[in-house]
Amino acid sequence: MTMSTTETPALAMPRNHKAWYVICSSKELRAKAKPLQRKLYGRPIVVWRSEAGVPAAAEDRCPHRNAPLSFGTVCGEHLQCAYHGWEFDTQGDCQRVPTFVGEANTQARSATAFPVREQQGFVWMWGESHSEPDCEPYTFPFADKPGYLTVRHQLSAKGSLHSVAENALDVPHTAFLHRGLFRNDSGDPTRLTCVLERTDTSVVCEYQGESRPEGIVAWLLAPSGGEVTHFDRFHMPCVVEVEYALGEDSHIINAAALTPVDDFETILYAVISVRTRIPNWIVKPLVQPLAMKIFAQDAKVLALQTETVHAFGESKYVSTEVDLLGPHILRLLHRAASETATPSEPYRTVVEIEV
Amino acid sequence: MTMSTTETPALAMPRNHKAWYVICSSKELRAKAKPLQRKLYGRPIVVWRSEAGVPAAAEDRCPHRNAPLSFGTVCGEHLQCAYHGWEFDTQGDCQRVPTFVGEANTQARSATAFPVREQQGFVWMWGESHSEPDCEPYTFPFADKPGYLTVRHQLSAKGSLHSVAENALDVPHTAFLHRGLFRNDSGDPTRLTCVLERTDTSVVCEYQGESRPEGIVAWLLAPSGGEVTHFDRFHMPCVVEVEYALGEDSHIINAAALTPVDDFETILYAVISVRTRIPNWIVKPLVQPLAMKIFAQDAKVLALQTETVHAFGESKYVSTEVDLLGPHILRLLHRAASETATPSEPYRTVVEIEV
Amino acid sequence: MTMSTTETPALAMPRNHKAWYVICSSKELRAKAKPLQRKLYGRPIVVWRSEAGVPAAAEDRCPHRNAPLSFGTVCGEHLQCAYHGWEFDTQGDCQRVPTFVGEANTQARSATAFPVREQQGFVWMWGESHSEPDCEPYTFPFADKPGYLTVRHQLSAKGSLHSVAENALDVPHTAFLHRGLFRNDSGDPTRLTCVLERTDTSVVCEYQGESRPEGIVAWLLAPSGGEVTHFDRFHMPCVVEVEYALGEDSHIINAAALTPVDDFETILYAVISVRTRIPNWIVKPLVQPLAMKIFAQDAKVLALQTETVHAFGESKYVSTEVDLLGPHILRLLHRAASETATPSEPYRTVVEIEV
Repeated sequence: MTMSTTETPALAMPRNHKAWYVICSSKELRAKAKPLQRKLYGRPIVVWRSEAGVPAAAEDRCPHRNAPLSFGTVCGEHLQCAYHGWEFDTQGDCQRVPTFVGEANTQARSATAFPVREQQGFVWMWGESHSEPDCEPYTFPFADKPGYLTVRHQLSAKGSLHSVAENALDVPHTAFLHRGLFRNDSGDPTRLTCVLERTDTSVVCEYQGESRPEGIVAWLLAPSGGEVTHFDRFHMPCVVEVEYALGEDSHIINAAALTPVDDFETILYAVISVRTRIPNWIVKPLVQPLAMKIFAQDAKVLALQTETVHAFGESKYVSTEVDLLGPHILRLLHRAASETATPSEPYRTVVEIEV
Repeated sequence: MTMSTTETPALAMPRNHKAWYVICSSKELRAKAKPLQRKLYGRPIVVWRSEAGVPAAAEDRCPHRNAPLSFGTVCGEHLQCAYHGWEFDTQGDCQRVPTFVGEANTQARSATAFPVREQQGFVWMWGESHSEPDCEPYTFPFADKPGYLTVRHQLSAKGSLHSVAENALDVPHTAFLHRGLFRNDSGDPTRLTCVLERTDTSVVCEYQGESRPEGIVAWLLAPSGGEVTHFDRFHMPCVVEVEYALGEDSHIINAAALTPVDDFETILYAVISVRTRIPNWIVKPLVQPLAMKIFAQDAKVLALQTETVHAFGESKYVSTEVDLLGPHILRLLHRAASETATPSEPYRTVVEIEV
Repeated sequence: MTMSTTETPALAMPRNHKAWYVICSSKELRAKAKPLQRKLYGRPIVVWRSEAGVPAAAEDRCPHRNAPLSFGTVCGEHLQCAYHGWEFDTQGDCQRVPTFVGEANTQARSATAFPVREQQGFVWMWGESHSEPDCEPYTFPFADKPGYLTVRHQLSAKGSLHSVAENALDVPHTAFLHRGLFRNDSGDPTRLTCVLERTDTSVVCEYQGESRPEGIVAWLLAPSGGEVTHFDRFHMPCVVEVEYALGEDSHIINAAALTPVDDFETILYAVISVRTRIPNWIVKPLVQPLAMKIFAQDAKVLALQTETVHAFGESKYVSTEVDLLGPHILRLLHRAASETATPSEPYRTVVEIEV
């Protein structure tokens, strides 16, 4: 067993605990499922569902002897530790201490539980225990709407939440890392106008003047070409959205909730919602493998980027103005992680790029 | 080669060097055996036997260029380093420096040797070099006594000496982790009186009012039931004993010397001595697999407990009065590890539990 | 992905950056080869060759988003990053930022490049960027000279540059670690006179009075025996040379450039040049396997030595006067790593040894 508790402050990413994160999909936590072990910001979390169907999340350690509760079993409305049989309810309260002659339920014996919501096929967890959520989780737009094909997939990338979010919303890399799939490194580039707006909770970029990209994905969605509407959006602290409308008939939103497993691994709970003229039975079998091919290329470079940052002991980025959303996302993440942050002025900028 | 020298003070277990630990079994160090590499509190130890049969132990590094002496060979009464041929006697004194024209034996060139005793099939090592033992090693009671069947086995658990000792002497977990083997989580519990006594060197708990446990182990040993005498004992710093007498005919002592490989791995040198009405040829083939099944369950939860403590960066235990021996064992281990400890008052308590 | 950035100052070896190191062989970087990832003192280095044939080396991270440049591709005279397509020339200057409307080449966007030389089949890299080399790389003597058989091989040892250099130039270990190949631990030793001289940049030891060693290597090279001339040499900071002349006809130089991958791994770029009476077609197939056998024994003990130093958290060496070159090599390495070192007096000593 490798025992590594090394933490490298210089490499630590900003952490925002007062927010909702997807901790698992509803499919993973189906009725009578065993408790699941997940991680959020490096902290082990047990996710379980009571027999009545209530989802629950807590630190994955029994307060008694620190055995992982995910090694335990669901007994009715309680989660029972496998070591000494202590039982906890969905709020984390200790309801039984076997062998002990006396009252089980005391504050000291309770598990550290987190608020939980279940919606649209995902179990969301509020990142701070003993804290009342001041908002509700993100709703995936157009998911499961009539007329839309909705595909969900779950992916893991060996990169920080920031590097994954930047990658998901970055245009310039598509002509190189995904050469031929989206765009190409063309000898005859088109100039686009990018309008970027940052608020306290989001970064949104609209691309104006874009023609249909040349890659196979775009061709499928809009065979007849037409005007393109393209938005990239980041919603604090963990949601990315890429929205394309091509012509009148095609509309695609690729959104993902990013869950920081630790400072260097992020799980993407992605939802692609597509409306197109092509029948769903043709689109459906194409979306998943294309998304997977693109993601595999991103995952490879994100892992290499993370390895490199570790090998050098620091990240050392040089940006240009075509790094549109990334630096603003980092700024919002840092603000949220800071105790003393004050609201910042809304920010707007217009940048010309060539694709 | 992974090079991890990380030490996490918050996770470090108390260490007691002025004590005897089993460093290997006599069987592992038979005549003409190669030198063995072992570890005590993370420190590599070479154990070897001279041609005359004398067992010896030393830090497993040659003082010359720090090659491990366990990579060397036994030459008569010396251990010869494989790199440059330096030779050491069983006391660690350097007796030869090849190529060198001059006297080999100087203080600076000696290996760091430890006092050693061999008894009852085990090689014991005093944990501090350059220190005269102030006592002799523990004697396993009833081992190899006439009328007793004695079974030895060696096990490794990924847990600290404290967590392994607590586990070995803990009653409440048996109905859960070992459900069906010892006890069950019964709807109709029996109340026992536990008398616990702690001295400066031991913790002893006597269980009064116990009826024969329901599990298969107990049934085999005392098919006719009868009165039960049950003691759990801890002897500083590394011996655990569970003693059961069931009726007039059955007497079982499961004792183990616990060797801390490092803060998170412990080797158990266990000796089970049994006297029962059932013939040995029936008992013998049952003892080992049953002990192994129980141990495998303990080893699993101990490893998970250790992983969890590491993942959270600390152990954070909440005890109740049914955690009978564990907290007292930890107290004795901490006292022994402290330089300034003064003798403490003997302690006695009586606790009611339900099993 | 294991993320270990642990650095243990107590174990760190002296590092000399203002020097030439072999970073790869010319054979590894043949025309149209993909960029290579290497490491020097733990720092990832990309080595690549432009289409015109110019070898180049730089820190293996793109200044933009720290993707490793070794994951990129050579495009004409540029190295192109695979992530966003930034391009760098052999001097490290950024020559293209795709998508960006403006001048690519600024100081901040340049990759950290190192001076490079290619000679005798090796690519040498100056260890400090932004620094003008004050000397040229080492020339392997007699390599590829008429009348000489020259064999190159590349080896990796899990040991520090110092431990590998000491091992390569150490006589006493040969009778033990390489028993039977070079020398034996003889009951009837010969006394040699060793004349050692240390300057600011080298340590040289001449062995006087040596008869032909008994091992198979020596027998092959000089079947008729004869007078032996034997020099061991260290040239700062990374070259070792063992030179033997046996009789009139046999001359062998085993030289190696040692490249510190990190504090605990060293690559040896070795060149054996041999002139002997035996025809090359007989010698050639013997040299490589014999060198490999000897090296495998050295590599084994070096790895064990390194593991032991790590397990104990420090190296703790005791030397005698037969440790001829090692302590002087360490002294020179420490001086070069120190900012404030002043030139030291040349040193000369004469030592008697028995082999």
